Amino acid sequence: MNIRELGEFGFINMLRKMCKKKEGILGIGDDCAIIKGEKKDFLLTTDLLAEDVHFIKSLNPPHKLGRKCMAVNISDIAAMGGVPLYALVSMGIPKNIEQDYLEGVVKGIVEEAEKFSIHIIGGDTSCFEKLMISITIVGEIEKGKAILRSGAKAGDRVYVTGCIGGSYVGLVLLKRGIDDRIVDKHLTPEPRIDIGRRLIGVATSMIDISDGIIADALHICEESETGMHVCIEKIPLCTEPERWGLKRVELLTGGEDYELLFTAPPSEDKYISSISSSVGVPITMIGEVTEKSIEFSEEGQRLDITCKGYNHFRE
Amino acid sequence: MNIRELGEFGFINMLRKMCKKKEGILGIGDDCAIIKGEKKDFLLTTDLLAEDVHFIKSLNPPHKLGRKCMAVNISDIAAMGGVPLYALVSMGIPKNIEQDYLEGVVKGIVEEAEKFSIHIIGGDTSCFEKLMISITIVGEIEKGKAILRSGAKAGDRVYVTGCIGGSYVGLVLLKRGIDDRIVDKHLTPEPRIDIGRRLIGVATSMIDISDGIIADALHICEESETGMHVCIEKIPLCTEPERWGLKRVELLTGGEDYELLFTAPPSEDKYISSISSSVGVPITMIGEVTEKSIEFSEEGQRLDITCKGYNHFRE
Repeated sequence: MNIRELGEFGFINMLRKMCKKKEGILGIGDDCAIIKGEKKDFLLTTDLLAEDVHFIKSLNPPHKLGRKCMAVNISDIAAMGGVPLYALVSMGIPKNIEQDYLEGVVKGIVEEAEKFSIHIIGGDTSCFEKLMISITIVGEIEKGKAILRSGAKAGDRVYVTGCIGGSYVGLVLLKRGIDDRIVDKHLTPEPRIDIGRRLIGVATSMIDISDGIIADALHICEESETGMHVCIEKIPLCTEPERWGLKRVELLTGGEDYELLFTAPPSEDKYISSISSSVGVPITMIGEVTEKSIEFSEEGQRLDITCKGYNHFRE
Repeated sequence: MNIRELGEFGFINMLRKMCKKKEGILGIGDDCAIIKGEKKDFLLTTDLLAEDVHFIKSLNPPHKLGRKCMAVNISDIAAMGGVPLYALVSMGIPKNIEQDYLEGVVKGIVEEAEKFSIHIIGGDTSCFEKLMISITIVGEIEKGKAILRSGAKAGDRVYVTGCIGGSYVGLVLLKRGIDDRIVDKHLTPEPRIDIGRRLIGVATSMIDISDGIIADALHICEESETGMHVCIEKIPLCTEPERWGLKRVELLTGGEDYELLFTAPPSEDKYISSISSSVGVPITMIGEVTEKSIEFSEEGQRLDITCKGYNHFRE
């Protein structure tokens, strides 16, 4: 079996099995790792973006690419309810890269960090075949308050912030050479730190949508050992797929939305509406947590979802 | 100007200039970044190893490669006097990699981590052209006690642990297909955590030798704003260069020794000898810190050192 058959999640499971568990530490398997501190807990997360895997250089303006590299990491801190504090930035740089492009990427990284008051405190560089940016962020959260993927309970409602599929459609339009505002959903996602912070003590589980809303809903079910019933028609899409000759399922599995998917008891519904109003971002109820079965239905018809998300190692 | 002309240090300086400084944080420019905690300080470091830049797959057995990837990061914690605690492991993996090789690398990473009681708490993976391993380590150190590059003072003595040039010779022999024990100096360097710990409150500055002893001595001078006089003939070499048809200067600029280079006042000389005896690793005095001029001499003759170290972006 090679890595293509093993897949990304197979590889992560391999690593997870080899690593011993330790009291007071949440390791591999959530958006961030948690290290228990004395007054606060620390959150750690790392994400790498590679040319021709996560981005195509000719389609991504350097400044926006830099911002995105930082934003996808910040989004992992948002998914735990935390505040980002520090970043380490490592880059693999092709020998023949134009200095303007490189400077643009670095400026974007630095600007997005400053937007969230993150201090870049280190990094590493190496020569590479293709451009690669790997960022590690350290964040903090009130002691014991991190929102895990594993806390969903049957009867909870399922919510999603913003709209879904914009990044996927944006990428399709970029490739088609069509200039539309939705392209920015792909190029510069918005980490939902402010919403994440307000969901502490409210959300029972949370994840940021990087692999596609369906795959990430399944991650919550897996870690919480629950089922889920999601009404597909309730999921707010950023655009009508038919307008661009696309299918709804493509928007639900395309990934890179970096919206928050979370669960909360029905009693929190009013408070969640108030968060939405004060932050100015829609938060939509799309289903509920069940005991066991995982069901995606569209207008009452149960859908058979097979394409669960994006796997880098698949062709 | 492209990245080849800019060079690795030029790039790091570019990032350093763009990042604002903050009270209580040591950022880019030392082996680790320091975050001040309440009872302890945290150390953060990240190093990436890339196929055909830092290693050649056919020459590096996977298990030893995995150990080395972890070891070079641990060495940065050693260079501050710290204790490593947690690691995040990111990998870029070629689609057609043999699963045995990949598993070997991961096992090596996990074993080296366990040897130092480090817990692997997260990571990321992506498909890649070539194999890439990027590790971030979090360590800790007693409050305010981290040993920086910037503390050397005129009159201090300059010391180095172990022997120098073994990694460079090991690589040459590997390429020549010669089987010799020295090859392991290249394949599996030994992080000097135990020595680093004992140098707290003793060493005035410290660095781990990754770019070559000459380049790293210059890093101490630069950060401490001092000079240094190093007697080349006092530097302990792992092997006689002539035996392998090599020149002494190649061993001094080859890099990847991962020994500790540090400075300490003459009054600490006896204590440093006792560390050497108790740990069972030689520690050699090779020169002294001066006010301004940087001088490398051999048998009283001043040497003109131009080849300062390894730059990934040079051909």
